[in-house]
Amino acid sequence: MALLTASRRISSSTSATTLRYAYFRSFLTAFREERDTFGPIQVPSDKLWGAQTQRSLQNFDIGGEREQMPEPIIRAFGVLKKCAAKVNMDYGLDPTIGKAIMQAAQEVSEGKLNDQFPLVIWQTGSGTQSNMNANEVIANRASEILGHKRGEKFVHPNDHVNRSQSSNDTFPTVMHIASAVEINSSFIPKLKQLQTSLESKSFEFKDIIKIGRTHTQDATPLTLGQEFSGYTTQVKYGLDRVMCTLPRMYQLAQGGTAVGTGLNTKKGFDVKIANAVAEETNLPFITAENKFEALAAHDAFVETSGALNTVSVSLMKIANDIRLLGSGPRCGLGELILPENEPGSSIMPGKVNPTQCEALTMVCAQVMGNHVAITVGGSNGHFELNVYKPMIASGLLRSLRLLGDASASFEKNCVRGIQANRERISKLLHESLMLVTSLNPVSCHAIL
Amino acid sequence: MALLTASRRISSSTSATTLRYAYFRSFLTAFREERDTFGPIQVPSDKLWGAQTQRSLQNFDIGGEREQMPEPIIRAFGVLKKCAAKVNMDYGLDPTIGKAIMQAAQEVSEGKLNDQFPLVIWQTGSGTQSNMNANEVIANRASEILGHKRGEKFVHPNDHVNRSQSSNDTFPTVMHIASAVEINSSFIPKLKQLQTSLESKSFEFKDIIKIGRTHTQDATPLTLGQEFSGYTTQVKYGLDRVMCTLPRMYQLAQGGTAVGTGLNTKKGFDVKIANAVAEETNLPFITAENKFEALAAHDAFVETSGALNTVSVSLMKIANDIRLLGSGPRCGLGELILPENEPGSSIMPGKVNPTQCEALTMVCAQVMGNHVAITVGGSNGHFELNVYKPMIASGLLRSLRLLGDASASFEKNCVRGIQANRERISKLLHESLMLVTSLNPVSCHAIL
Amino acid sequence: MALLTASRRISSSTSATTLRYAYFRSFLTAFREERDTFGPIQVPSDKLWGAQTQRSLQNFDIGGEREQMPEPIIRAFGVLKKCAAKVNMDYGLDPTIGKAIMQAAQEVSEGKLNDQFPLVIWQTGSGTQSNMNANEVIANRASEILGHKRGEKFVHPNDHVNRSQSSNDTFPTVMHIASAVEINSSFIPKLKQLQTSLESKSFEFKDIIKIGRTHTQDATPLTLGQEFSGYTTQVKYGLDRVMCTLPRMYQLAQGGTAVGTGLNTKKGFDVKIANAVAEETNLPFITAENKFEALAAHDAFVETSGALNTVSVSLMKIANDIRLLGSGPRCGLGELILPENEPGSSIMPGKVNPTQCEALTMVCAQVMGNHVAITVGGSNGHFELNVYKPMIASGLLRSLRLLGDASASFEKNCVRGIQANRERISKLLHESLMLVTSLNPVSCHAIL
Amino acid sequence: MALLTASRRISSSTSATTLRYAYFRSFLTAFREERDTFGPIQVPSDKLWGAQTQRSLQNFDIGGEREQMPEPIIRAFGVLKKCAAKVNMDYGLDPTIGKAIMQAAQEVSEGKLNDQFPLVIWQTGSGTQSNMNANEVIANRASEILGHKRGEKFVHPNDHVNRSQSSNDTFPTVMHIASAVEINSSFIPKLKQLQTSLESKSFEFKDIIKIGRTHTQDATPLTLGQEFSGYTTQVKYGLDRVMCTLPRMYQLAQGGTAVGTGLNTKKGFDVKIANAVAEETNLPFITAENKFEALAAHDAFVETSGALNTVSVSLMKIANDIRLLGSGPRCGLGELILPENEPGSSIMPGKVNPTQCEALTMVCAQVMGNHVAITVGGSNGHFELNVYKPMIASGLLRSLRLLGDASASFEKNCVRGIQANRERISKLLHESLMLVTSLNPVSCHAIL
Repeated sequence: MALLTASRRISSSTSATTLRYAYFRSFLTAFREERDTFGPIQVPSDKLWGAQTQRSLQNFDIGGEREQMPEPIIRAFGVLKKCAAKVNMDYGLDPTIGKAIMQAAQEVSEGKLNDQFPLVIWQTGSGTQSNMNANEVIANRASEILGHKRGEKFVHPNDHVNRSQSSNDTFPTVMHIASAVEINSSFIPKLKQLQTSLESKSFEFKDIIKIGRTHTQDATPLTLGQEFSGYTTQVKYGLDRVMCTLPRMYQLAQGGTAVGTGLNTKKGFDVKIANAVAEETNLPFITAENKFEALAAHDAFVETSGALNTVSVSLMKIANDIRLLGSGPRCGLGELILPENEPGSSIMPGKVNPTQCEALTMVCAQVMGNHVAITVGGSNGHFELNVYKPMIASGLLRSLRLLGDASASFEKNCVRGIQANRERISKLLHESLMLVTSLNPVSCHAIL
Repeated sequence: MALLTASRRISSSTSATTLRYAYFRSFLTAFREERDTFGPIQVPSDKLWGAQTQRSLQNFDIGGEREQMPEPIIRAFGVLKKCAAKVNMDYGLDPTIGKAIMQAAQEVSEGKLNDQFPLVIWQTGSGTQSNMNANEVIANRASEILGHKRGEKFVHPNDHVNRSQSSNDTFPTVMHIASAVEINSSFIPKLKQLQTSLESKSFEFKDIIKIGRTHTQDATPLTLGQEFSGYTTQVKYGLDRVMCTLPRMYQLAQGGTAVGTGLNTKKGFDVKIANAVAEETNLPFITAENKFEALAAHDAFVETSGALNTVSVSLMKIANDIRLLGSGPRCGLGELILPENEPGSSIMPGKVNPTQCEALTMVCAQVMGNHVAITVGGSNGHFELNVYKPMIASGLLRSLRLLGDASASFEKNCVRGIQANRERISKLLHESLMLVTSLNPVSCHAIL
Repeated sequence: MALLTASRRISSSTSATTLRYAYFRSFLTAFREERDTFGPIQVPSDKLWGAQTQRSLQNFDIGGEREQMPEPIIRAFGVLKKCAAKVNMDYGLDPTIGKAIMQAAQEVSEGKLNDQFPLVIWQTGSGTQSNMNANEVIANRASEILGHKRGEKFVHPNDHVNRSQSSNDTFPTVMHIASAVEINSSFIPKLKQLQTSLESKSFEFKDIIKIGRTHTQDATPLTLGQEFSGYTTQVKYGLDRVMCTLPRMYQLAQGGTAVGTGLNTKKGFDVKIANAVAEETNLPFITAENKFEALAAHDAFVETSGALNTVSVSLMKIANDIRLLGSGPRCGLGELILPENEPGSSIMPGKVNPTQCEALTMVCAQVMGNHVAITVGGSNGHFELNVYKPMIASGLLRSLRLLGDASASFEKNCVRGIQANRERISKLLHESLMLVTSLNPVSCHAIL
Repeated sequence: MALLTASRRISSSTSATTLRYAYFRSFLTAFREERDTFGPIQVPSDKLWGAQTQRSLQNFDIGGEREQMPEPIIRAFGVLKKCAAKVNMDYGLDPTIGKAIMQAAQEVSEGKLNDQFPLVIWQTGSGTQSNMNANEVIANRASEILGHKRGEKFVHPNDHVNRSQSSNDTFPTVMHIASAVEINSSFIPKLKQLQTSLESKSFEFKDIIKIGRTHTQDATPLTLGQEFSGYTTQVKYGLDRVMCTLPRMYQLAQGGTAVGTGLNTKKGFDVKIANAVAEETNLPFITAENKFEALAAHDAFVETSGALNTVSVSLMKIANDIRLLGSGPRCGLGELILPENEPGSSIMPGKVNPTQCEALTMVCAQVMGNHVAITVGGSNGHFELNVYKPMIASGLLRSLRLLGDASASFEKNCVRGIQANRERISKLLHESLMLVTSLNPVSCHAIL
């Protein structure tokens, strides 16, 4: 019976193969009893998590494995819990226990214990259950490091790992850590690479005069380099936009505890932990100026998502232009030659599809959608706590990951290899009716 | 070198554990050569996929494993390819080959070969690469069934499995199959269960008179049952709304081939395959009235997503009301007692959080966001083909899954166990200033 | 002093001309005293409105005249109040007063008293103040018809005009009346005209073979007529989508009064008034099956807005294709010749811009935006009343008006006059590499 | 015949009163002939506009008078054309003509000629027709100033007023001028006032201890002042967010002419005109670093709209909290007493509705919707020109106006007058189970 209950979730996958595997495993797996204020519950012996994680698994059967809390959140919990143990030792936490927590948390921050974090995004809106998942896993792992058994609570998830903390301040803290780290370590470098690549194309094409197009109609000429300089500027400003939002993303809620007052934590804990996180991540985190705002609202996420929304708008424009300028080979505009990365068709020779543009623009549409989801979640907080936290966090992290990866893929597999079809460009320009316009500036003071 | 290239993608995961595992595996794994019009490429020997799948893996390193094409799409490919083989045998496909394809496709439709579908959503916007993934896997599996080696192409991915088809008609076809199946087999039953449960609460509470609230202010009384009858009606109409969209979702693009003309397919193929799919799924699929529309636009998805958006609006209202009516225990409205499923706090006795409402409303926000993504993707088709197909399909399928699962979880873990706090309801009603109003109908012809 | 207070709003316009005019008028205008439960207030003598309207003017100085409640709402109030008086006479309302109300309400329904409705959308979220505006104007006008003075309340805004009604059921009722009337009298005919026009182009172009384009790249051929048949089908389905939502739009809240219970109204009033409105408008209105839902939620508006969102997606696709197919004259695709309606440029001969496509696609973007606004408003109801009513109603009405008008303009000034550039189409087709593909069906079973 | 044609638009209003008036006027009004490259056209004699404006009126019968181009755009045209004349005199424009243009443009910038700008938003997507409207009106007015007749073109709309300009650079320039002026002169001061008012409430309430609420459930206490400090911080950061976007809003496209190259304008014109606009408006406008980006994209608008979207999220949270904390009077939370501004109900004594919260949250929803419209428009530019300009500009301006006005109304009519219900707050706090928690910090290291 316990076996059945405990394996319920595991076997909820729909694939027959998986079902057979889970069934098989449920006989092999032993269980141990974990316990919380609701009483005892069976947990698979090979898992480090405890009662509250197990309960959440059973109560939130929503979406399956794909919907698990994003990895950057898990890793940020590692960072935070390590820093918390370090600071708590200053405030009297037993150093043996503190160091074991730090070691276990380090493993979490390195992604070594990812498979101990089975909970989905669609849980309590405060992220409490993921905070407890981190506390339970780190407590059990730290206990083991110190030679104790999992489930024994030699290192206690609440009293030790979560000491001076509350889900209500830890979860927003990891939201900010995870996002700021992703922005700095992955998103910005990828966008910068795209900017650089567009800029070098702008130089490469600086002497190629081509027909301009306004309203999709022939207009006065410009150079292809000038066209690409517009794209470059869009991406450059996009980076500025994202960076403008960081001062508010660097503010950490930690120290606010349950409602922002810092009840049950120590004086100075907030500043010390922000410093510790800053040191650990090498990013300029500070303690939030107002903890009430930091728990009750996630305007900082709505803001950053707004910046990503703008970047998506830019990239959609760029990718659209590039695929239209590369349309053809015979019956389109044909001014650009895009790299051929895969067969476009088995029967149509020469069919090269602008697939990188397609992947990127699909991502842009998704980022615009995520932005609305984050906006709706951000606007719906009540009183001292916004309870759309996991959705908001995972939405922004997904947007960051997809937009960064798609930009990198687009840069590497498309932009870098774009060639100008000089012959075609020249032919179109000379056939156009516009050349005379540009050569006759005296006669016209106005161009509509 | 081949080892390194082929394992590039596999090792792109960020977790250290995974990295070590992948490294280890790359020595164990052998590779075979597969080939397409771009030439040869190394594919891991234990994989059934071929050259085009492998190329896509390498060209679209976007988002990692979480972003793989949703399982219902894979399964729908199984359904479609099975039906195509069956119909193709009518048109002269060698029955030995046809039957092997049907068997292999059946395995795909049952989810047995899920791990042979590694491609992400963010690929070519026509879904061509996932169609080729299905063709390659089924061809290799069918070849093996017939005693041939994978890679030999005894059963050919294009000539046999994809016969009379094009990515441009297969992918929209699986989009429609996957969505219609999800709606019928999972979404509608879950919503119906929620409707039933709300309705039975409406009966249970039919005699409990309570204060009404308009503008969040005390208003004239009604019964708690009447309040729940409003929720029931919302869900009931939500089901009507989703069902209204099905006539257009049941239209299949198959038979349109590359641009809608049906070039390179056989007369009658479109009708026969729609019939076969209908039989296989037991759903009333028909061939699309206009194949040009069916390839170039996905208005049917925008429409169904709009229905889900409306359902989300309803559920957000309902879940919000329930958590506010259940607020307390001492300092809120306190009219409802919600089931206690997990500890709300380790230190605050009696703290029960409306976590199911939170999970559900987060899902609703995400569905609203996905709706915008689908809208943007749907509006951006060009000429004969909309190339936001994988994003549109995966967005709708995610919305369906999340909204269905969250409704089921909400029904099971919250609605079903809601109790009226009769004492509190009565106390509030009698303290209010409104009772006199309702007892004095003569004096007032108007209630603002 | 009264002069100053009362003219505050009138003079809030920013234009200097207007300011001078208002200043001038404030000396000419006399004021009369009107009174409500808050006490006396000065109202311009030439206005029919009363105290509550005047108060709203002063309390909601948001957006200026452009933001006034849309005219179809005002007219629907005329329809409703006329019907209410008629039904109230069955229930004992003095026929002299009843008939005068009917006459005054008729004037409102004909738009003759539009300038007596100065209130903006951004008022109380129940629309109470606009209901009172209607009651006050009709009461004063009816009083005058009967030879009494305005302000005297011989016909009383609450006791007579609003009899058996509440803002909470009248406002949702006029929302539904206004929208259903707009849909039937204006939106559907305009869309149908567009469908007809596209269809006749589809016939006209049925023999013109042209290159197909997928992924914006050359693909196998189709006829221009087939391309337009796709557009026709999109619009045709769009009409189906909008009509699918009407059964819920035809449900009227009237009779629910303050919270849905129908307190203070008469038995049967709801059915009688729905019948009266149906007769007056010649549309199949019925009384809402569940009045609690009808007041507390506006899912019907979210749903209809979702249908308009889908129509916008369709029209954006169509207009985009048409401007791209019409791009040129020399350096674009040039397959279509669009009507020339105005100079595109004073200096570039032959520059004809696809301005109708531009107007239409801008409208489509706005409709998508309004849909999100309506979604957000719809999801935020609390308890017995959704208080985003004026925003939701005006958003949908604006979407209906813009989308209908822009479709009509597009049809008349663009679609109707589109010509095929047969020479260009033929040239492109024969230059393409695709013709061989379509002539060689034997060799290829698969088209990606 | 000319009478009928020319008055077609004027009489398109639906109100019978208006119709009669228009009919009457059409007999009084004479017409004059104006002329453009399309030939002659009749224009009402009392109007200053010319042929191209008249043509647009007839070709874009979309939405009626409410949909006219927003006034800040018209005024910004006045500013720009005045500055252009000034700079053009440096480059050789006849000073007599230049000064007359400056005087006429000044009148436009002061709103004195608003009724000469009848064109709707839904016109050509470049705003060309509104640019021509400005050119025509200013040319005719300047001609009259110099003693010439309108229609004579003594001062020429293109050669003089539009000299060295193109619609493609003027329209984006006025978009930026109008928005930056609105932000600085109206939006920011209104938000600042709201911030100040919330802050002073935060001080006023700093000693009132109250129950906290997380997950809408009772939690540990905080002060009412702390709660309001959270709101204050949200608004303060909102101001930061909007101001962060200004550096890109201050960049003017002027000097780019048709495609960004500056063809047909003079060297240095771009810098001089930016300086002139800066001087005229007292805002730090500069010439855009990259004119190609400035014409082809409106990312700056998407960005600023994103900031407004975040402000809306903040204000929706604040207004929601305030109405819930003010719910009651007997059966709600009742912690706040909101100002009574109008009767809430004629029959329910004491019913005070939080109508200012309602108006504000409706506005917030609309701003979120406009943000999506602007996002969609921004993402759909093609090549050298984004042609969603009027929609993007009017959307942002409407959001700015509504959000500013609603914030001011909310501040004045609600926040300023909020009182704490100290008795109720104290009662709830002491009845709660939470007080013990806050007094017992030792026992608990963790608060979920």
